[in-house]
Amino acid sequence: MQSAFDAKHSRLDTSLPSIRHLQDLIRNRKLVQIEITTGEALEGVLAWQDVDYLALREPMGESLVLINRAAVVLVRSLR
Amino acid sequence: MQSAFDAKHSRLDTSLPSIRHLQDLIRNRKLVQIEITTGEALEGVLAWQDVDYLALREPMGESLVLINRAAVVLVRSLR
Amino acid sequence: MQSAFDAKHSRLDTSLPSIRHLQDLIRNRKLVQIEITTGEALEGVLAWQDVDYLALREPMGESLVLINRAAVVLVRSLR
Amino acid sequence: MQSAFDAKHSRLDTSLPSIRHLQDLIRNRKLVQIEITTGEALEGVLAWQDVDYLALREPMGESLVLINRAAVVLVRSLR
Amino acid sequence: MQSAFDAKHSRLDTSLPSIRHLQDLIRNRKLVQIEITTGEALEGVLAWQDVDYLALREPMGESLVLINRAAVVLVRSLR
Amino acid sequence: MQSAFDAKHSRLDTSLPSIRHLQDLIRNRKLVQIEITTGEALEGVLAWQDVDYLALREPMGESLVLINRAAVVLVRSLR
Repeated sequence: MQSAFDAKHSRLDTSLPSIRHLQDLIRNRKLVQIEITTGEALEGVLAWQDVDYLALREPMGESLVLINRAAVVLVRSLR
Repeated sequence: MQSAFDAKHSRLDTSLPSIRHLQDLIRNRKLVQIEITTGEALEGVLAWQDVDYLALREPMGESLVLINRAAVVLVRSLR
Repeated sequence: MQSAFDAKHSRLDTSLPSIRHLQDLIRNRKLVQIEITTGEALEGVLAWQDVDYLALREPMGESLVLINRAAVVLVRSLR
Repeated sequence: MQSAFDAKHSRLDTSLPSIRHLQDLIRNRKLVQIEITTGEALEGVLAWQDVDYLALREPMGESLVLINRAAVVLVRSLR
Repeated sequence: MQSAFDAKHSRLDTSLPSIRHLQDLIRNRKLVQIEITTGEALEGVLAWQDVDYLALREPMGESLVLINRAAVVLVRSLR
Repeated sequence: MQSAFDAKHSRLDTSLPSIRHLQDLIRNRKLVQIEITTGEALEGVLAWQDVDYLALREPMGESLVLINRAAVVLVRSLR
């Protein structure tokens, strides 16, 4: 059984501007810069997002990097 | 179906002084300085807010910067 | 419709000692020092509090500084 | 009206070992050292705790220091 | 009695891309690099995940290292 | 009255691998190293855990150190 509470945590609210903004960055394969709590900045193309992580494909990377949403500070698109 | 729980997380409570304060900064296109957990300070004009992010337009920037609300430390308006 | 859940997040529980303590600092216009997660310390008089932010008026400041409650480390009153 | 949800956030669960441990430190006026996220360590006697803050009286201090529970890293009693 | 609320916190939502991604890294015994909030990076093979921790077996380690999920910044697989 | 919500926050879910792992470290009086968000590492034997804190007895210590679970980064057992 899936309760309303579980549901909340599993599904992104696609009516939120920020979720839609990130979804657009994914769809348009925009180059983004993501700054994280350690002060580091990662560049790449977002592959997907869920409630816990953003998945980034780095220019040279073969595999995805999972970025904890709680560790995200800034998201900039680099056109 | 949208539960009360989902609703809480998707909608801003516009009766809160801080939400209204931010809404005023957006409406009046005030120049703001936002200090974040990394110690950095960003300047610009707020474009919108949702429960997860503040969207800032930087003076020279062409695209919006999403600032994770959890990473916001201080918001100052610079008149 | 306002659910109990929304309500919780919008209203301060004024029976809590810490909320009352902050409310007293506001009412008595006490000079306070607020230390935040970046290590910085701000001084001023608290104007209001809500569930997300404390609003501080700095001695020289013309506008309020919003301080994210999650970024507050210490609150000291400087008599 | 006070919902079960509000209640949770307002009342400490006094059956928790850590809440009882802190309550003992308060009752016995033990000198404690509290290390916080900034790396700083404060010393004093705990005056009270609620769900959001610990209130500390420093040896030389005339007024209470509120310590955000989220910023507490370690609590040591210094006998 | 186990409420829906308890349940949420105890079970991973295996329909989430990030949970599945981590589950694949575990199943395929991939060498991973996990960067944490302190800036440190750990390498090893993930043994299991639950809602609170990731368990990592380091190349030279005899016992598991528990990594607080809240302290995880990045997860990279190193093929 | 104790609601389901209160209950969740007061009781550890002993079916979680990480809770059981920590419980084993307690029961077997294993020497552990706990790294915290400040970068510091503490060594000792875990005395108990609850939902908010881990209680550590340091080799030379006479009294327990409470470690905020939110400040725990890594738990290693040092056999």
